Amino acid sequence: MEQKIQSLASLGTKNFTVYLDEVSLRNGSVSKRICIDHPQAAAIVPFVSENEIILVRQYRYALKRETLEIPAGKIDKGESPEECIKRELVEETGFEVKTIKWLYTYAPAIGYSNEFIHLYSGRDLKKLEKKIDENEISSLEILTLEEVLGMIRDHKIIDGKTIIALAFIRSLI
Amino acid sequence: MEQKIQSLASLGTKNFTVYLDEVSLRNGSVSKRICIDHPQAAAIVPFVSENEIILVRQYRYALKRETLEIPAGKIDKGESPEECIKRELVEETGFEVKTIKWLYTYAPAIGYSNEFIHLYSGRDLKKLEKKIDENEISSLEILTLEEVLGMIRDHKIIDGKTIIALAFIRSLI
Repeated sequence: MEQKIQSLASLGTKNFTVYLDEVSLRNGSVSKRICIDHPQAAAIVPFVSENEIILVRQYRYALKRETLEIPAGKIDKGESPEECIKRELVEETGFEVKTIKWLYTYAPAIGYSNEFIHLYSGRDLKKLEKKIDENEISSLEILTLEEVLGMIRDHKIIDGKTIIALAFIRSLI
Repeated sequence: MEQKIQSLASLGTKNFTVYLDEVSLRNGSVSKRICIDHPQAAAIVPFVSENEIILVRQYRYALKRETLEIPAGKIDKGESPEECIKRELVEETGFEVKTIKWLYTYAPAIGYSNEFIHLYSGRDLKKLEKKIDENEISSLEILTLEEVLGMIRDHKIIDGKTIIALAFIRSLI
């Protein structure tokens, strides 16, 4: 158990806030903890056919590079995880999804963030006449599950949520 | 591509630093990004027998709860991932490991952190006459792989690195 004494400082964007807290440890000594107060998030493995899924390529500022990953986003206030992932899929890919199935919910970065990510699979997709958010998404790639698993093994995909979602899709856990 | 204009503010502990940066987006508009400059980390699935592994229970301040997870820690300056995980295993469990095997390296939180976690399996463990870091670790649990997979399915384990390491242990990706 670590008890908060006080928040020493914080940084925020419109999406989330980071706190630097002074805490008392179990042995009574005082230390500091960085803690991101993050909204929950949702991600989806969108099937366009029995064995093909859509991935999005996007620039990730924290990594200073592009990544290939499943569509995902933060849950807005008042939104359910299911509503969030349907909205994000349209924004990022231009596809509407009819049938979604919950796969798993996990915590990606327990050392410094309270984020939880809800993972889904999606089927019965329909392309809308809508432009995708080109500020966020560089390109879409449609790949077979085997191709995606190969790209994970080859480190062409290194994103934790994509790897965990694929493990659950294959019923491997 | 998102170009940094300037860092507006930062928060730091001895372990890592968080920056609030002003960035220019692809369409030329200006936005803010929170970005954790985090050292790389290492984690290990330590086998005490053919089918039993050691997990550690520890309080995670960001989640305000205890979690059950594989031993892990941040890589110190000048340390290799292999040296790091051997040191962390001793500190967190009191066990020395002779044989380690790299499983995978991934990025847990690409939305706001540049952290990479190197995952290993470990065999040929030896208990040392050494106290574990009780400020950090609440207890050790020795469980079979099947028990751990069941606890993941039941959400008694929700930690991303533990889930990914177990998927690779089972050669499921």
